[in-house]
Amino acid sequence: MSDQTINIGFLLFPKLTQLDLTGPVQVLSRMPGAEVHLIWKTLDPVPSDTPISILPTMKMSECPQLDVICVPGGSGADDMANDDEVLDFLRKQAEGARYVTSVCTGALVLGAAGLLDGYKATTYWAVLDDLKKFGATPVETRVCSDRNRITGGGVTAGIDFGLVMIDTIAGRKAAEAVQLALEYNPAPPFSSGSPHTAPADVLAMVRQRMTPFIEKRAQAIARAATRFRERQQVRV
Amino acid sequence: MSDQTINIGFLLFPKLTQLDLTGPVQVLSRMPGAEVHLIWKTLDPVPSDTPISILPTMKMSECPQLDVICVPGGSGADDMANDDEVLDFLRKQAEGARYVTSVCTGALVLGAAGLLDGYKATTYWAVLDDLKKFGATPVETRVCSDRNRITGGGVTAGIDFGLVMIDTIAGRKAAEAVQLALEYNPAPPFSSGSPHTAPADVLAMVRQRMTPFIEKRAQAIARAATRFRERQQVRV
Repeated sequence: MSDQTINIGFLLFPKLTQLDLTGPVQVLSRMPGAEVHLIWKTLDPVPSDTPISILPTMKMSECPQLDVICVPGGSGADDMANDDEVLDFLRKQAEGARYVTSVCTGALVLGAAGLLDGYKATTYWAVLDDLKKFGATPVETRVCSDRNRITGGGVTAGIDFGLVMIDTIAGRKAAEAVQLALEYNPAPPFSSGSPHTAPADVLAMVRQRMTPFIEKRAQAIARAATRFRERQQVRV
Repeated sequence: MSDQTINIGFLLFPKLTQLDLTGPVQVLSRMPGAEVHLIWKTLDPVPSDTPISILPTMKMSECPQLDVICVPGGSGADDMANDDEVLDFLRKQAEGARYVTSVCTGALVLGAAGLLDGYKATTYWAVLDDLKKFGATPVETRVCSDRNRITGGGVTAGIDFGLVMIDTIAGRKAAEAVQLALEYNPAPPFSSGSPHTAPADVLAMVRQRMTPFIEKRAQAIARAATRFRERQQVRV
């Protein structure tokens, strides 16, 4: 554990899933030395999937090299996976960052930027297989570390991801201290947190509710995957 | 489960612990029929303990009767426990609300308002005993329900609290669907989330770091408890 500042930048975007961002921000902002930045194209409030809008602290165009870049997920990640300004920003940051990370469907944005090609990664349960379209090997796990790519599962996995990041950067004692400070001693009242444990009718209901998002997402991923392959061929 | 709107209001205040708020907001905003409001004295951004500031959606003075009122915690809760405008607002809302709730040290604010007198309640592990000063019976549990008072433990307990609230209001299937949608299948990398399971040196380190807050909090709670007792005597 050093006294150095660790600059951690979270990408914001419209329609991000709020807890994908706020979970790891809460955890990582308690890490000794952490400076957390909230980054978007402008400094205007960024709407999330809840009534909470997020105020950026820094413009993308003014962002210095980060030590950690993290991309949260949400329905707006579909647009980010096809946004050249965002993908260029991520590729440039990834060259110098110590860790390139995501929570939930943020992994699809990293994938679209070509940053998971040849890496193991995880993402939200409903889109795990889509990682293959970006050259990644999907791993069904809460947090997946492969070299300097660290990816978290869906939404609430961002809290576990944050603790893994602190352990990786500042050591186990630092992570355990934050876990205690945040009383992270979870006790879900039901065991419906994964498609493998949720009751069948609940899984069917959730899939049904996702239908409109799934179709839009499938189209966005297909476009992003085509562009990913085109870039690959240029580089070969 | 009905088609009626459920108005859920979260009290905001400077120096709230961000995840105390954002966890249950994420969970409850997925409940069918939920309208989530973020309430403060003004509409200016409210700073949290992280770089995320919260934009209120409604002024306290313009807030209609809520179905659910929820008070998050944080170091700023000390001030709220001695703020007459806030305590009057909570008492007035509590008269007509279906549920009067808190996460983390928000319970101390409910207590200061006299709203936990004669109730079982829980709060952040480090201040559990302080509930007694407001006539409440502390219960060491993740989420405590006593009649229409539902209180959550520290910080991350707000997610479990949110699911218990959905179960209570909209039924188990609705809660399970949100649990799956948020992939709430927690896997903490360590078992340091409670003072009973944290390593002794980690507990000592966290207590040490809390020292400045503990002294300020003890003074604020003592003032609030004196005023609570004075109000009790007037009512007797």
